[in-house]
Amino acid sequence: MTARDVAARKPEVSEVDTREQLLIAVNDLIIERGLIDVSFSDIAQRSGVNSALIKYYFGNKAGLLMALLERAILPSLKQMELLLKMPDSPQDKLRKHIMGIVNTYHRYPYVNRLMHYLLAEEGDKYESRIAEELVKPVARAQEIILQEGEKKGVFRPVDPMLFYYHVIGACDHFSHGRFSLKHAFGVHSITDDLKRDYVAYLSDSVLNGILRKE
Amino acid sequence: MTARDVAARKPEVSEVDTREQLLIAVNDLIIERGLIDVSFSDIAQRSGVNSALIKYYFGNKAGLLMALLERAILPSLKQMELLLKMPDSPQDKLRKHIMGIVNTYHRYPYVNRLMHYLLAEEGDKYESRIAEELVKPVARAQEIILQEGEKKGVFRPVDPMLFYYHVIGACDHFSHGRFSLKHAFGVHSITDDLKRDYVAYLSDSVLNGILRKE
Repeated sequence: MTARDVAARKPEVSEVDTREQLLIAVNDLIIERGLIDVSFSDIAQRSGVNSALIKYYFGNKAGLLMALLERAILPSLKQMELLLKMPDSPQDKLRKHIMGIVNTYHRYPYVNRLMHYLLAEEGDKYESRIAEELVKPVARAQEIILQEGEKKGVFRPVDPMLFYYHVIGACDHFSHGRFSLKHAFGVHSITDDLKRDYVAYLSDSVLNGILRKE
Repeated sequence: MTARDVAARKPEVSEVDTREQLLIAVNDLIIERGLIDVSFSDIAQRSGVNSALIKYYFGNKAGLLMALLERAILPSLKQMELLLKMPDSPQDKLRKHIMGIVNTYHRYPYVNRLMHYLLAEEGDKYESRIAEELVKPVARAQEIILQEGEKKGVFRPVDPMLFYYHVIGACDHFSHGRFSLKHAFGVHSITDDLKRDYVAYLSDSVLNGILRKE
């Protein structure tokens, strides 16, 4: 590798770092505050990156938030695609799918609110991208698992659209329920045990809800 | 009634009207935009009420939003209290409870986001009021119905806290899913038929999920 190659590659590497640094700062700020609305100056201060660079990398705040959304969801969607190809039973696939969504929302509790914020504020620009990239793949995966179960005679026929709202809503609400957990149930944080309990409860309940009765 | 009585009563009546007029304006603006954040001047313009009166009636924006939240939820909670006293079976109570929540969220699709907004922005001031007035009564009602069903041998034992997140999340997500419905499923609005389908699907699924197997 010549000195010239090194010089040519270095900016790319640090570009990835700076971009990621900015996204981590926004991620942390949103989680701490529980609100989507963070200012460029807050992000600059937290990340130590000049706020002019936010514009350089993401164009505007909506661009930054869209990148944050993709950063949170796309890795889980890859896992989900792998799951569909596994030899597991439809029941096990559904359990693992529910576990995957609960884990994603637990890690990024702002995902649904961020999606709705972007759609309300910048709908024209991002709605088809959000639908194609982030919503449809999940709905489609659920449909495939439901059809597989129906074909094997283990699930009763279920409308995949109604199923989508049921399961996504149940997974999401738990993850940003920190407040109500504390005040209504005296539970101060979502521990790994509690998350496991919820995944087990929800999987059982959803599965029992759609299993074909003998 | 003397002229004096009339004069003394009139301000009260119009005070109720103005207050309600302001709340209707905020309700409509939030639903149209899909965002909680509306400005005093938007509210003044929409309601035709001087923005100084917003301060007079509600103190500040958080006070206005808290009043909006109570206006949306309290009537449903009264219905729920009546339901608990009915002679219906636990299964029927659960179906009616789910229908009630779906209807409330359908009418006021901002309720959960508004609650989280207030808690994130004004947690110290409103969190115990929100928990005591709005969250605990729902969680408690569900617990009563679940216990009744368990005692009668129709429901398996279920943790009411996990159940709460499951059911509330599923009801809420459907109501503000207008965008994903359109783009991911080609459905352009939540008609009464679709809402009925969702209530029927969700009630069946939740009930099957917790029914004791023979």
